[in-house]
Amino acid sequence: MVSTVTAPLVIAVDCSTTAAKAIVVDAAGRVVGSGSQALDTRSPVPHWFEQDASQWWTATDAAIRAALQDISDRSTVAAVCVTHQRESFVCLDGDETPIRPAILWLDGRAEAEVRTYGTERVELLSGKPADITPGLYKLLWLRDHEPETMARCQRVADVHTYLVHAMTGRWVSSTASVDPLAVIDQSTGDYSDELLELAGLRRAQLPELVPSGTTIATLRPQVADAWGVSRDVAVIAGTGDGQAGGIGLGVTDPGAAYLVLGTAVVIGSETKSYVPARAYRSMISAMPGQSTVETFSSSGTYLSTWFRREFGDPGLAGAPDPALERAAADLPIGSERLMTLPYWNGAQTPHWDGKASGVTLGWQGCHTRAHFYRSLLEGIALELRLQLDGLEAARGEPVEVMRATGGGARSALWTQILADVFDRPLEVCATAEVSALGAAAIALTAVGAYDTLPAAAAAVSTTDAVVTPRPDAAAAYRRLRALYERVYAQTRDLLHTLHETPLHETPLHETPLSKEISP
Amino acid sequence: MVSTVTAPLVIAVDCSTTAAKAIVVDAAGRVVGSGSQALDTRSPVPHWFEQDASQWWTATDAAIRAALQDISDRSTVAAVCVTHQRESFVCLDGDETPIRPAILWLDGRAEAEVRTYGTERVELLSGKPADITPGLYKLLWLRDHEPETMARCQRVADVHTYLVHAMTGRWVSSTASVDPLAVIDQSTGDYSDELLELAGLRRAQLPELVPSGTTIATLRPQVADAWGVSRDVAVIAGTGDGQAGGIGLGVTDPGAAYLVLGTAVVIGSETKSYVPARAYRSMISAMPGQSTVETFSSSGTYLSTWFRREFGDPGLAGAPDPALERAAADLPIGSERLMTLPYWNGAQTPHWDGKASGVTLGWQGCHTRAHFYRSLLEGIALELRLQLDGLEAARGEPVEVMRATGGGARSALWTQILADVFDRPLEVCATAEVSALGAAAIALTAVGAYDTLPAAAAAVSTTDAVVTPRPDAAAAYRRLRALYERVYAQTRDLLHTLHETPLHETPLHETPLSKEISP
Repeated sequence: MVSTVTAPLVIAVDCSTTAAKAIVVDAAGRVVGSGSQALDTRSPVPHWFEQDASQWWTATDAAIRAALQDISDRSTVAAVCVTHQRESFVCLDGDETPIRPAILWLDGRAEAEVRTYGTERVELLSGKPADITPGLYKLLWLRDHEPETMARCQRVADVHTYLVHAMTGRWVSSTASVDPLAVIDQSTGDYSDELLELAGLRRAQLPELVPSGTTIATLRPQVADAWGVSRDVAVIAGTGDGQAGGIGLGVTDPGAAYLVLGTAVVIGSETKSYVPARAYRSMISAMPGQSTVETFSSSGTYLSTWFRREFGDPGLAGAPDPALERAAADLPIGSERLMTLPYWNGAQTPHWDGKASGVTLGWQGCHTRAHFYRSLLEGIALELRLQLDGLEAARGEPVEVMRATGGGARSALWTQILADVFDRPLEVCATAEVSALGAAAIALTAVGAYDTLPAAAAAVSTTDAVVTPRPDAAAAYRRLRALYERVYAQTRDLLHTLHETPLHETPLHETPLSKEISP
Repeated sequence: MVSTVTAPLVIAVDCSTTAAKAIVVDAAGRVVGSGSQALDTRSPVPHWFEQDASQWWTATDAAIRAALQDISDRSTVAAVCVTHQRESFVCLDGDETPIRPAILWLDGRAEAEVRTYGTERVELLSGKPADITPGLYKLLWLRDHEPETMARCQRVADVHTYLVHAMTGRWVSSTASVDPLAVIDQSTGDYSDELLELAGLRRAQLPELVPSGTTIATLRPQVADAWGVSRDVAVIAGTGDGQAGGIGLGVTDPGAAYLVLGTAVVIGSETKSYVPARAYRSMISAMPGQSTVETFSSSGTYLSTWFRREFGDPGLAGAPDPALERAAADLPIGSERLMTLPYWNGAQTPHWDGKASGVTLGWQGCHTRAHFYRSLLEGIALELRLQLDGLEAARGEPVEVMRATGGGARSALWTQILADVFDRPLEVCATAEVSALGAAAIALTAVGAYDTLPAAAAAVSTTDAVVTPRPDAAAAYRRLRALYERVYAQTRDLLHTLHETPLHETPLHETPLSKEISP
């Protein structure tokens, strides 16, 4: 695939929610092979999301075989490193067999447990705001709703732990990978006895922890043989997909931030040590001693996709609409005084308000569907700016440059709005596999191809475009921000009342509607 | 057209904003002839609206000729009565010639004069909230901006005054017709010296006032001859189109209210005497001694039309959309917790807030375009219910039954929502010409065909359907109303800030948007 390949090679796997994606990367940081295999998700009850954990391994195995297919000389493959969907976990019995399907990060079954157990103390120890995502609350749900599962449970394995065991036979994992379960004390980097006791877990049920980048073991011989690689290939402790994505974008110190413009949106950066705050969640970083901090909003391309499906040209059936993009780009800053609070799926950082919902202020007769569309994109950007300001204030260090990735990074309109609202240059990386590249950088450092992780991160990361803020636009958004910041506080109780008002949730049809004339 | 015609006949003319529409009505209240002629409106400056007053007469004359065309025996035509667009007026010189185009009710040029001169005292005397519609503020604008017009002005004529002069040569008019100029004292029914002084007008510039239903004079011989009617035909003092519409719907006492579901929406009822309040505007009634009270909201079918244009199926180009109506009718009460404040053109009764704009609260991913559409219709209904409650509270008498007319009355969906929100039966009248029917009732009473105006009103009015409130729906809307009532108060300052924030009103294009991929 690439004419000159520089040894050694490493294999990086991103076992995400939807698929296992593997790449082979050479010592220069170039991708020389890739493969992927889809994963199935089931939702047996609304808001429940589960997977068959054995697929984590079968899909990873298949993706790696595909990535290696075109590599004729596999003798220089030196290591494999995994990044993965976070917070998801499986309970295994004494035969190391899943007792029930794995429960995923986006599973919402533990809402009551979040309210009951998500205390300030738990937030401080775990570094994570009380929310449905951390594994802790779902472990508490299992304790209370499926005691038979926990009685038989000998092992609790996140995706990284499960895959390392499949590759090496050892119950050793990366601290950064286990951390999203929310049973690790952020200030020590070891399991918290207090959090384990709350969860009703013993240390023996969890893997031994090592820092990211540590060589855990070599591959099981049968795995190495099946892949056609040396039996000396090292399995390197990886990290979760968010932290790995930051590394894949070259974000390894507090001066830079990554911006993931996916279905949901995330801002991530680094702190030199654990700085507790509600302005972000803290995670053990792949950078030694550091903490990765992240804000989260569930309204990303979720919203633009919703808009195109509901209000776009029906002929396009929700597909991208260049005419709509152009019409929105032709509108002035502020969508002619139409402002949107993008809480279609509730509010996350820093409000964590599941009763919040979206608000649109300022409707006038001059507004078109392009105004509403632009207002959504602006609302997401204003929300992200609030989160960025909160992150900077809480940790006391500025973000100088933003690096954007994800599907939304391909929109010239949205990236320009974001650069203007952030009032900072936005470096855009169009590569789809930044998380896998981050895992590759960890592996390349572990095998000695680079002296430091930042050097490896710089080698694997690429910048496809730099979007510069426009001073006039930045000044206009500054004025709108002052208003935007007031909207949630002033409408919060209205949204809560709307959420709680008793209503029939089904249509009434006592009186047949015989006439069909539009008013 | 009708097999048996009962003498006498009367001619009724509605000289509205868009057309002069004439009907011939027999003594049984049946329409036996009709005709219409369009009027031209010019907008030389945005928000300015003007007409050539001479068209008021040429269009009325043409409409009456058309209405009489099929009446073979015109000898039984006994009277003519005019109803008309309100507040619009023309300034005439000593030769009774227009000095400048007439200024219409919807003309917004006098915003500054409304703020400066629209005091509580003026509101109390005139019975009309300070707003762009009353003629007074446009007379003040002319005084300040076109002093040469007012210096030459010998006559100020509203539409009724102008047409009566054209038909009889006399400067006599109906108090109810002149009243919208806002120079009549509601408590006396005569010109207010204080308001005339404020406007800089002399009594001699205004017509002599007589009550609605008074015989002013007979037709000029040349007019009677041209129409082919007797020279004894009486010109009867009419009233404005709103009050006339109430009569045409049979609303002549406080127990009933009319609901005009047009581009804008109006609730009107009667009080036995002038009861000053900000909850409505008061007008001299066509019912002797009574006051007609009206609430006003500019968001009627204006909003449903806007929605279909901007968010409807582009293939329909804004035309009525039965599929959208059905989808909205299939949704539960409250549009699954989506609530809209319909102030697309600012707020009118009782807030009179030109800086207000529309608000949508509660957006969730489950919402479709039909949810937004239903939410608009529900928002208009909730706003109207607030206005009705305010009207009842201010005057101290309940409204038992609502009679609806206008384009929106043809929507089964909207009339059901309105009946449920009002929690009262809604009698629907599909006849387009209720104002002209009201003028006909006045004329039939004046010529002795009926003893009283309520009896004549009952004869001309028709009910096409009665929409009954559904108890479950009414209860759900009652809960939503408690929330709706809080929305304006809590978002008012946000909307004002949004209105006032300095922004570039044109797009910025420093950076060409080369990419066209939807986020």
